[in-house]
Amino acid sequence: MQNELSYEELQAAWPLLSLSERLEGFKLLVPAEADDFFLNLNARNQAELLLALPEGERRLWLRLLAPDDAADVIQETPPAERASLLALLDDSTRTEVTALLSYAEDEAGGLMNPRYARVRPEMTINEAISYLRRQARERLETIYYAYVLDAQQHLLGVVSFRELFAAPGDKKIQEVMRSDMVTVSEQMDQEAVSQLFAQHDLIALPVVDAEWHMKGIVTVDDIVDVVQEEATEDIQKIGGMEALDGPYLQIDFAHMVRKRAGWLSALFLGEMLTATAMGYYEREIERAVVLALFIPLIISSGGNSGSQASTLVIRAMALGEVRLRDWWRVIRREIFAGFALGTILGAIGLMRILLWPARAQLYGEHYILVALTVAASLVGVVLFGTIAGSMLPFILRRLGFDPASASAPFVATLVDVSGLIIYFTVASIILHGILL
Amino acid sequence: MQNELSYEELQAAWPLLSLSERLEGFKLLVPAEADDFFLNLNARNQAELLLALPEGERRLWLRLLAPDDAADVIQETPPAERASLLALLDDSTRTEVTALLSYAEDEAGGLMNPRYARVRPEMTINEAISYLRRQARERLETIYYAYVLDAQQHLLGVVSFRELFAAPGDKKIQEVMRSDMVTVSEQMDQEAVSQLFAQHDLIALPVVDAEWHMKGIVTVDDIVDVVQEEATEDIQKIGGMEALDGPYLQIDFAHMVRKRAGWLSALFLGEMLTATAMGYYEREIERAVVLALFIPLIISSGGNSGSQASTLVIRAMALGEVRLRDWWRVIRREIFAGFALGTILGAIGLMRILLWPARAQLYGEHYILVALTVAASLVGVVLFGTIAGSMLPFILRRLGFDPASASAPFVATLVDVSGLIIYFTVASIILHGILL
Repeated sequence: MQNELSYEELQAAWPLLSLSERLEGFKLLVPAEADDFFLNLNARNQAELLLALPEGERRLWLRLLAPDDAADVIQETPPAERASLLALLDDSTRTEVTALLSYAEDEAGGLMNPRYARVRPEMTINEAISYLRRQARERLETIYYAYVLDAQQHLLGVVSFRELFAAPGDKKIQEVMRSDMVTVSEQMDQEAVSQLFAQHDLIALPVVDAEWHMKGIVTVDDIVDVVQEEATEDIQKIGGMEALDGPYLQIDFAHMVRKRAGWLSALFLGEMLTATAMGYYEREIERAVVLALFIPLIISSGGNSGSQASTLVIRAMALGEVRLRDWWRVIRREIFAGFALGTILGAIGLMRILLWPARAQLYGEHYILVALTVAASLVGVVLFGTIAGSMLPFILRRLGFDPASASAPFVATLVDVSGLIIYFTVASIILHGILL
Repeated sequence: MQNELSYEELQAAWPLLSLSERLEGFKLLVPAEADDFFLNLNARNQAELLLALPEGERRLWLRLLAPDDAADVIQETPPAERASLLALLDDSTRTEVTALLSYAEDEAGGLMNPRYARVRPEMTINEAISYLRRQARERLETIYYAYVLDAQQHLLGVVSFRELFAAPGDKKIQEVMRSDMVTVSEQMDQEAVSQLFAQHDLIALPVVDAEWHMKGIVTVDDIVDVVQEEATEDIQKIGGMEALDGPYLQIDFAHMVRKRAGWLSALFLGEMLTATAMGYYEREIERAVVLALFIPLIISSGGNSGSQASTLVIRAMALGEVRLRDWWRVIRREIFAGFALGTILGAIGLMRILLWPARAQLYGEHYILVALTVAASLVGVVLFGTIAGSMLPFILRRLGFDPASASAPFVATLVDVSGLIIYFTVASIILHGILL
């Protein structure tokens, strides 16, 4: 007989295992730990494991899940398998899961749990507590708040368990409930829902439809996952790629390369404009090769300052700190910031050339003018990069795209071409009649 | 008499207001909304508002806060003010807050709430429920789980409210409690705590000391803020700057410029190596100016692919998907990915030069060899960028730095110098005796 496997051992090895090894490992778990292990997998892994199990064993594991989690798992399976999985659920859960499947994955309805604690406004506290004890025995999943509904399931108010427990037993629910509540609609985007949670420090939010009927609750434990997920998407976009939809080491290699190659090629096509721009300045470079030496330095400074500015604005937008109409305040700030940063880099660049021991051999007799050209270009390029980087997320959002697509590489590419133009324009002014 | 102000109006205007305007607006709130408004401010804003209020009014607002929130607010005030604020608390809260102030802000102890629901193992369910109702009336802040403690305050187990409510009233707590729990230590880093929450989908985790004494609970609503905060820090570092510690529009301008100028100057100094490297190739550029045209295109492709790779790895590390010992699996994947991506870009570059209408005028009679040079360099530079970008976060973490510091601009700067060397080396091999 084979040895048993511990929870921790299987968890550590999990990302490295093939599906059949996972199934084998899962079967070797101590029975008492297997259900915890299954519950803590993400929906995609639960779905894979479920479909790998013999049909007779699927029901047990699927029924272990709360309706919102079961809906997530079914969403992860191929459409052909869904009907047979739904058939494994008991009638009332199947109705709930089917209703949940009709919501998009990233809206409040898709995150919602239809099982919540409900009481009536005219109950006394003592009645409510024993009524909740009866509900808990039957099918309640989560109790942090009890929702007060009328006979038509309209949401009238909410009582936290703390308030319920703290109130005298003979008071009526309607005397202790709060009726000014934060609610979410079924279609609200999950990013907006997570901002509400962050703002209000709540454990659960009720989901209501247009007629104020209570549909379910969204709990904050699901929101932690949402916040992680949204931040991951933003970070990957900022890094200059399409967001992957799975953990790095588990995602299919060809799929990942496609996601990365798409953006990389688009950026490359954009960056080709630099070769075209450089073509226009070929004669200048021929006359003063010294100008070529500083091209990487100057364009990368523009890219770096633009990437700082766009990242700041993207994140501030995602957190709701900056809205579309704030663009004017942002640009005013960034003009000053860009000017300050450009001046700092320009000063460093000036010093670097003027104080370099071999300056006259390397940069020619007019090294002072070359230094001035580099310094003045740096001020212009950094200023331009900062403005472009900070405004691009606004433009993207205004046009209906995700501002996070204003990635560091995208901004850098945009700034590179303009950086070259700024540099050679400054050079032609300062060095006219001398080197050019 | 002035009009009253609504919650929403003040919230919308808040970021734009000076401190004295905020105070004025806060005083104009409908009294019933003022306490909600105050509770939903972040700790920094609560601290500012509190210190702006006349001394006589401070006590009311400070006592509104739970001990962990009061500790956060006091942490945000200048050290000279702290003693006088602590004096406003009642004796037992002051003891709790003073204990919380001794923890670092970013460890579990600093997030913890010392008020939690406690029961004894030998109580019956009915006794426990009425005991909890008594606790709630006194000073309980949060009830999702009841923690089972012995007389020495050792943590024995936990009962969720759902289990408590669902169990028959005459069963003993020790019969329904779970004793295999996830716990955190007081010193655990908040990022590790948030990963535990994301893995286990829990609402609260108990904090215990080395002797297994229960110290408090960390609740998931505080974790949403932590997750947001940590993602913001990472995103700002990935954008190539030090993390700001406040909302973009509210942070002091000089402070922000300093944070950005530091990294920008460091990157600029690194990027100066490109000017040095270009100095070595001045003779080659003089002979074949056509080579200069593709410099921005080639080095930026290396930077872009490096930035993709580093962002992916940084995020996977932050989510715990990739650990230090996985470096070998990552580099194997990235070598293949870098080669594939480099080949794609190289092919596009080759086509671009070979099919360009004015190819012979622009790139000279040897344009086919120039195209081969560009394509081969692209494969090398993208491969190098991908490997460097994916390994840098591992190296930084191994050396004890934050892997998120492997920002897009940092990687780009690193790759720029090596990109130039690769390009000119490839050129000297392919074009030797022809153009060079």
